[in-house]
Amino acid sequence: MAPKGGFPALPVIEGARFAAAAAGVRYTTGRLDVALMELCAGSTVAAVFTRSATRAAPVLDGEEKLARIATGSAGSGDAGFAIIVNAGNANAFTGAAGSGSVEAVSKAVGERLGIPAGHVFMSSTGVIGEPLKHERIVAVLDGLKSDLDGAALPRAAEAIRTTDTFAKGASAEVAIGGGTVRIAGIAKGSGMIAPDMATMLVYLFTDAPIDQPLLQAMVSRASDRTFNCITVDGDTSTSDTLICGATGKAKGVARLTDAESDDARAFEKALHGVMLDLAHQVVRDGEGATKFVEVRVTGARSDEDARKVALATANSPLVKTALAGEDPNWGRIVMAVGKSGAEADRDRLAIRLGDLTIAEKGWVAEGYREEDGAAYMKRDELVIGIDLGLGDGESVVWTCDLTHQYITINADYRS
Amino acid sequence: MAPKGGFPALPVIEGARFAAAAAGVRYTTGRLDVALMELCAGSTVAAVFTRSATRAAPVLDGEEKLARIATGSAGSGDAGFAIIVNAGNANAFTGAAGSGSVEAVSKAVGERLGIPAGHVFMSSTGVIGEPLKHERIVAVLDGLKSDLDGAALPRAAEAIRTTDTFAKGASAEVAIGGGTVRIAGIAKGSGMIAPDMATMLVYLFTDAPIDQPLLQAMVSRASDRTFNCITVDGDTSTSDTLICGATGKAKGVARLTDAESDDARAFEKALHGVMLDLAHQVVRDGEGATKFVEVRVTGARSDEDARKVALATANSPLVKTALAGEDPNWGRIVMAVGKSGAEADRDRLAIRLGDLTIAEKGWVAEGYREEDGAAYMKRDELVIGIDLGLGDGESVVWTCDLTHQYITINADYRS
Repeated sequence: MAPKGGFPALPVIEGARFAAAAAGVRYTTGRLDVALMELCAGSTVAAVFTRSATRAAPVLDGEEKLARIATGSAGSGDAGFAIIVNAGNANAFTGAAGSGSVEAVSKAVGERLGIPAGHVFMSSTGVIGEPLKHERIVAVLDGLKSDLDGAALPRAAEAIRTTDTFAKGASAEVAIGGGTVRIAGIAKGSGMIAPDMATMLVYLFTDAPIDQPLLQAMVSRASDRTFNCITVDGDTSTSDTLICGATGKAKGVARLTDAESDDARAFEKALHGVMLDLAHQVVRDGEGATKFVEVRVTGARSDEDARKVALATANSPLVKTALAGEDPNWGRIVMAVGKSGAEADRDRLAIRLGDLTIAEKGWVAEGYREEDGAAYMKRDELVIGIDLGLGDGESVVWTCDLTHQYITINADYRS
Repeated sequence: MAPKGGFPALPVIEGARFAAAAAGVRYTTGRLDVALMELCAGSTVAAVFTRSATRAAPVLDGEEKLARIATGSAGSGDAGFAIIVNAGNANAFTGAAGSGSVEAVSKAVGERLGIPAGHVFMSSTGVIGEPLKHERIVAVLDGLKSDLDGAALPRAAEAIRTTDTFAKGASAEVAIGGGTVRIAGIAKGSGMIAPDMATMLVYLFTDAPIDQPLLQAMVSRASDRTFNCITVDGDTSTSDTLICGATGKAKGVARLTDAESDDARAFEKALHGVMLDLAHQVVRDGEGATKFVEVRVTGARSDEDARKVALATANSPLVKTALAGEDPNWGRIVMAVGKSGAEADRDRLAIRLGDLTIAEKGWVAEGYREEDGAAYMKRDELVIGIDLGLGDGESVVWTCDLTHQYITINADYRS
């Protein structure tokens, strides 16, 4: 379900440059598999990482670096930043060799770009448990450096793909403080997608001048409402990473320092929009997906209860196969509500497909006709509405269907 | 994966009689879809029901009846019991009409067998949200009554099937107190299977003389260690029911009243064995299953943590598709451990396939060869061992793989 019109045009973010290369990390067909991204001196960065208990080496390294940068203890002043990403090997569960690889690549990138290694973030996505041949990445760094180009973000989006069927990009421009700020982002991810950041890599760039703590707060908040609200298979990756770099090069824009200012609100809204767009693209590219589904839960006793119901529904194999079969089998939604662990009362529960009320007050809705439900299910984009009738708790989660193609992709991904 | 040798020979349980009929509840092909089971006067019954928040009408009714029987407030003294089961319609989310159907059928069964309606348990399995045409069940009751036969339990096992590919039965005989006690059980279930009793119906019969509270305690305990340790798709049904009836007709056996006695222990062990056998059969018949998989977690900080890891692994679509693809993709097991929410330390984690150590101390095990893992994965029965290296917590869960056939069955089950 690639977006119509293909990869979008992205604005140039002054102070950020990009390059991609085919390093043969795992693939031998000459496909792009390494991306380098550079942020000029004076930039700020914020990041969000997977909460998996078996986080990959680059994630553990990134967490440490971010903490030192955020607390000003990185000791590298106004130096720029770099992000180096490889696809094909996740460098996860690779023991001491794994952190050694991150260290070696960070050092090599830093040397070439004149950036301290503590300002170089690495991300890796792909197979878990196989040593990363990091020398193959180091071998292409000189070429990457000479290719760095402010317009090459689409090539980076290509390079970070694994099972993705299309490269993902989104952007926004927002007028603030007498100038215009631009945001451009890319993402990868299509399986092992679940809240708490799935096998998802997201890189966002903006020319906004903004303090690091404020940028971090905005990114964390938006991440909770976008990437942490999508699920393809309920599986959480060991490698998820979102990094947002702000170069501060937008002309005529005063530095954002106050979260409550109109400018900061406008910027955060635009950032949230770009992240939501990318998150939806990840779901649309869910492995084998043929439907894009919004699960909207209202009337729960609490937001947390609403989220339990939304995720139980979005992750239920029986709901997801009914979606694939275009079957308005709302009984499976009742089942999912029942198993969610949230408080529910059968006789107050209402279930809707789009504007169609299917069930209410413990029974099929008066006037509901199976053929109306069946016609609705043929759409590519579906909204499942679940109202628990108990309180004000709400939650929205986006997901896709579970198809034969998911099995095909995942039953023979590695061997 | 039907058991070799087909449906097992089951011992006759004196005091219990069975019958099955084709009532056309949903199916119109003349297949058996209603089963009647009768327990003689003086029997005791125990039961376990689904914990879903959207429990079906027969489940809510059964819970109430059991509570009254257990507290002696049913007011029906030594009257016998009956169980009436239909397949094809779950009578779930059917509002007031749903409980009306249960009441009408219970009354009709009770009248024919001379049993108070409060001693008649009903179970329904099949589609959720469609009114049950209970008059079709009532219409076959006279025939069922005249067919009642102590040897007809296999016919009942046939009648309660929905998507099951084979009927499930198991039995045991155990010598206690100078006599022999017999246990015979049947079950149905193959999808919507997850802990807390899935779309699973289980009926157990024994001629043991045993007090109700003791039987209930044994059944609950064994259920936690058998049916609540299996998962096919992580989905929990609205209808799960396990009922165990004890007729007390075994000759020369003293009444079981003391849980600590050798006789009670021997009986409980046999009962547990029959339930475990049936639970395993449900997994083996998991929709589309080609592998029977034991996930054995040790070394967790607590039993609860071990269970989290076992279920996260057993329910992971990526692990289950790797099993289907016979791919020793242990990285997905690392992922599942990481997302489980249990405490884990990458550098203490060990992963085994059968006796083969694949990963330990944060890396692939020395001497592990991919071809050994690949060879192991070709077996029909697999044991995944996960040791967290942190404590004494343990858990075992049984599951199956996720195949194209699961999608085929569930993407077009109803419409």
